[in-house]
Amino acid sequence: MKVKNSIRIDKSASINLNVRGLPQSPTLEINERCKELEREGHKIYRLGLGQSPFPVPSAVVNALKLYAREKDYLPVKGLRELRGAVAEFHREKDHVDAQPENVMVGPGSKELMFLLQLVFYGDIIIPTPCWVSYVPQARILGRKVHLIHTQFEEKWRLSPVRLRDFFESENDDGKPRILLLNYPGNPEGATYSRQDLESIAEVARRYELIILSDEIYGQLDFQGKHVSMASVYPERTIISSGLSKWCGAGGWRLGTFTFPAQLSWLMDAMASVASETYTSVSAPIQYAAVRAFKGGLSIERYLVHARRILSKLGKWCARELSTSGIRVHSPSGAFYLFLDFSVLADRLAERGIQDGPTLCTRLLDEAGVAILPGSAFERPENELTARLSYVNFDGAKALAASESIPLDENLPNDFINHWCHDSVEAIQKLMAWLYQDH
Amino acid sequence: MKVKNSIRIDKSASINLNVRGLPQSPTLEINERCKELEREGHKIYRLGLGQSPFPVPSAVVNALKLYAREKDYLPVKGLRELRGAVAEFHREKDHVDAQPENVMVGPGSKELMFLLQLVFYGDIIIPTPCWVSYVPQARILGRKVHLIHTQFEEKWRLSPVRLRDFFESENDDGKPRILLLNYPGNPEGATYSRQDLESIAEVARRYELIILSDEIYGQLDFQGKHVSMASVYPERTIISSGLSKWCGAGGWRLGTFTFPAQLSWLMDAMASVASETYTSVSAPIQYAAVRAFKGGLSIERYLVHARRILSKLGKWCARELSTSGIRVHSPSGAFYLFLDFSVLADRLAERGIQDGPTLCTRLLDEAGVAILPGSAFERPENELTARLSYVNFDGAKALAASESIPLDENLPNDFINHWCHDSVEAIQKLMAWLYQDH
Repeated sequence: MKVKNSIRIDKSASINLNVRGLPQSPTLEINERCKELEREGHKIYRLGLGQSPFPVPSAVVNALKLYAREKDYLPVKGLRELRGAVAEFHREKDHVDAQPENVMVGPGSKELMFLLQLVFYGDIIIPTPCWVSYVPQARILGRKVHLIHTQFEEKWRLSPVRLRDFFESENDDGKPRILLLNYPGNPEGATYSRQDLESIAEVARRYELIILSDEIYGQLDFQGKHVSMASVYPERTIISSGLSKWCGAGGWRLGTFTFPAQLSWLMDAMASVASETYTSVSAPIQYAAVRAFKGGLSIERYLVHARRILSKLGKWCARELSTSGIRVHSPSGAFYLFLDFSVLADRLAERGIQDGPTLCTRLLDEAGVAILPGSAFERPENELTARLSYVNFDGAKALAASESIPLDENLPNDFINHWCHDSVEAIQKLMAWLYQDH
Repeated sequence: MKVKNSIRIDKSASINLNVRGLPQSPTLEINERCKELEREGHKIYRLGLGQSPFPVPSAVVNALKLYAREKDYLPVKGLRELRGAVAEFHREKDHVDAQPENVMVGPGSKELMFLLQLVFYGDIIIPTPCWVSYVPQARILGRKVHLIHTQFEEKWRLSPVRLRDFFESENDDGKPRILLLNYPGNPEGATYSRQDLESIAEVARRYELIILSDEIYGQLDFQGKHVSMASVYPERTIISSGLSKWCGAGGWRLGTFTFPAQLSWLMDAMASVASETYTSVSAPIQYAAVRAFKGGLSIERYLVHARRILSKLGKWCARELSTSGIRVHSPSGAFYLFLDFSVLADRLAERGIQDGPTLCTRLLDEAGVAILPGSAFERPENELTARLSYVNFDGAKALAASESIPLDENLPNDFINHWCHDSVEAIQKLMAWLYQDH
């Protein structure tokens, strides 16, 4: 799908040129397009959006109700109790030395990333495929972005060699730079092992690189064994997290950054800008978030079931799609698969499909399956790649079903067919479309 | 009080120079300072912050509880139902032709103002004294600000003559510009009559000026007779409003902009940036806001009582302070008085006080009364002015007390002494401090 809905331009408009022509975020845009087709009466499989299918845990919803009267402006960096809960969360889950004063809370980690790019005066390094908003943020702010393209053979992961090559090609060791790393990753569902991270850290240390480690899917590592970059490169890693993914509360808008002590100047600069923009995160939401980050048995159980379901489904989708000639890795976490159709290039070319955007538009129009082209993730436009998000099922029902199956058993083979039926059907539609006569 | 708490600077810090040295917002900063003094055991009268003393209306709190499970990412510009409720609110209250598609919802009107300044490529005109965040926002974004200083004799209001003089001095009629107008006003509690607005509109029309009309205190016009700039200058007025003031929900963070149809390009550009930053306002908060903007009897009653209390107290404070030689106008709305101590300059100079910041620091340290210096509102630093916010009383109790007194009666004279006791005491402390021997 080509991004067409850039803002309309009036003759009298006087618009910042960094913003003029900026498209709406593609993941949000696809939602609009799907609705349009649905209004026309088509059945649409929404594999485009990256929203958790699971409900917010009851304990957290109840906390929001309990604190619904809270109306005070809270401190810019966040409610003290919440900053404490987030620090403890990372100490326990990620084995890092985080203290409450190292934590900053914002209305989504996306907003915090924007503030980071606004206050930091330096270049931004982004391995691709990457999350859709990193590059537009840099564009709005006039920051210079260096993309490092990775390959299918590397599991779309940044190798230390590529990172070192980049620095050597730049020939300016002292330039201030931030690397945006995201794992388990959107759009490819892959992760990094401790060893991978250590090799990257070695290069980073050499160039005093700041790493923004976007670990928002950390708790959705299928094995529950996420390793934080901050545990191997504590001195310059900022951990980005929030409620959106592991807690199913994307629409609540609460993200967190956890800084190393020596980057407190960055946090303080961000707080200065925050105090002149969003002020603080919604008070009732912050109080409820304390409950979420404090965790405990019921939330841990929720996570274990969520992981079990996502893992079963994600791996099934990858296996199934592989049989059709699509190149795709079995996922390690998150909700996504990054599909490479290059082996099928000739077949697709016969149908007039020679790039990712065309592939996605045709797939949506002809089979009702919505996925996003690789170009939305900063891959070359002519590349036949796309992101598939496999979570278009009723998460509440699937969770309830999983809860009735002991955790020491595997989910039965018909589980996904029964409880994630729409996702399964979508994969079948996609494969049928791929091989249909034209 | 001098603003001292600018961000710490590390030698290795690479910070955007528009942000480096940016102070924390003074209204938030004073809060921290008061807490410090309180920890030392002092009784502090907090007349520095601008937060509504009243609780969020029960109907709205109940709506938040009801929608606590809502977890979806909502549309960037806001929930359709909320945009509709806001449009209807302005149609009914302000007699303007607002439609749902003209409304954009954000996490506070402050954030929306920041986005407006970010996407608009032009100069910003601000009459002073003005709200604390307008100028820092422009500074962060590198926008050029033109301050137009007003005077006590003008009730600190922008006159059409000053506006015309400004344009003539600029000698560039076609330059894109936005005027930020705020009434009932923070920091001076004054408003504009329809006739005032028409005279300003006449000049604005001549120069095709866009007006951002910050009417967040509109419903707190003491007579309930707020006139919107959009009703006299519909073609280029954006109305800024939100839940923070009239609905007592500052900490919830929900603001609204209502655009004229021909400025939809500005709204669309803002939505593009919003989709890459905060994404959308917290879903449960938006659902609850629908209830707030739909209004009805219970909310109308809440407003009438709130106005009656604020009016009684604000006018009493102004009268009382006037007797001590402070120049101050009787307020027409909002929570504030803007005090001019210039008549007392000699007396203050004897005590070593020659500017607003020193005056406020000494008043806080010596009498425990926290008010903000005029310099925080972009007045000259050597001016002996300050903003006093008179709402440090228990709004829930005062509302309940007012509800027991028929609305066709005036509040009795001892009402404020009884229910707004801390505010009364603070005024007395301030006046005693002014005349104390040294």
